[in-house]
Amino acid sequence: MIIIGLDPSLSCTGWGVVAKSGNRLTHIANGQVKTDARATLPERLVTLDRELTDVILRHRPDCGAVEEVFVNKNPQSTLKLGQARGVCLLALARAGLPVSEYATRLVKKAVVGTGGADKAQVQAMLGVLLPGAKVAGADAADALAVAIAHAHLAGTSALLAR
Amino acid sequence: MIIIGLDPSLSCTGWGVVAKSGNRLTHIANGQVKTDARATLPERLVTLDRELTDVILRHRPDCGAVEEVFVNKNPQSTLKLGQARGVCLLALARAGLPVSEYATRLVKKAVVGTGGADKAQVQAMLGVLLPGAKVAGADAADALAVAIAHAHLAGTSALLAR
Repeated sequence: MIIIGLDPSLSCTGWGVVAKSGNRLTHIANGQVKTDARATLPERLVTLDRELTDVILRHRPDCGAVEEVFVNKNPQSTLKLGQARGVCLLALARAGLPVSEYATRLVKKAVVGTGGADKAQVQAMLGVLLPGAKVAGADAADALAVAIAHAHLAGTSALLAR
Repeated sequence: MIIIGLDPSLSCTGWGVVAKSGNRLTHIANGQVKTDARATLPERLVTLDRELTDVILRHRPDCGAVEEVFVNKNPQSTLKLGQARGVCLLALARAGLPVSEYATRLVKKAVVGTGGADKAQVQAMLGVLLPGAKVAGADAADALAVAIAHAHLAGTSALLAR
């Protein structure tokens, strides 16, 4: 099973692809889609859609996973994030992939063993779980983490809430 | 010039297409894209994308217009709306359309003559400005209104803010 994890945002969306075979996890690829802050919002969404679609075509994942979103910050940021996240979910679903959603605590628990782990601990565990993987940045690391969480939890998870 | 206006939402996105030729405005079509509340979020976004893309292919607009969003309501609604709005903006921009954004007050002012007009006044003016148009519902009416606003204001408007 090939899993793509996404960490959506308008400026920099992380993606990470892992393969699960029995209990064995293998790193396939990861990266970040950055959009030009000087471009219009619709142009930035087109870039995000095009690059993610390209990643999906290249790695042909069987399913997608994203983190749940915290929406208790400023509403303008929530709207921006929502617009990028909608395009990310669309790219996965349009390719026919089932999409699962995981709470941040659950992702940390699956990767590090504790829901209270900090970013440094998550990134250190990525080095252990996916030896040799060169991680493109913090957003790609978060995307790999949610892909790993899905690898551990798939079957136990509900699909993205209605 | 053919203009498509959109009033994005996850449950029911309104769309309206008008043609502007000199000072003359003609109704072309309008409708609403409803998504099934029992479907998953990614599935609903796919429906929205597919139906809007179909509308754009059918009516071949030259440009798109959307209303600015109020984001002072509950953050979960803002996130939902953002996700649908991202897919709407993507559908327009992917088709190569420039997208303009108008404040609600400006839309009302362009259609009724006053920024404080209520929904009933806007809908009554649609009957005057687009005689014979059968309007599919309140969301389609809002979409036609923003298309009309763009017809009146195009050239004076900034493209969608960065």
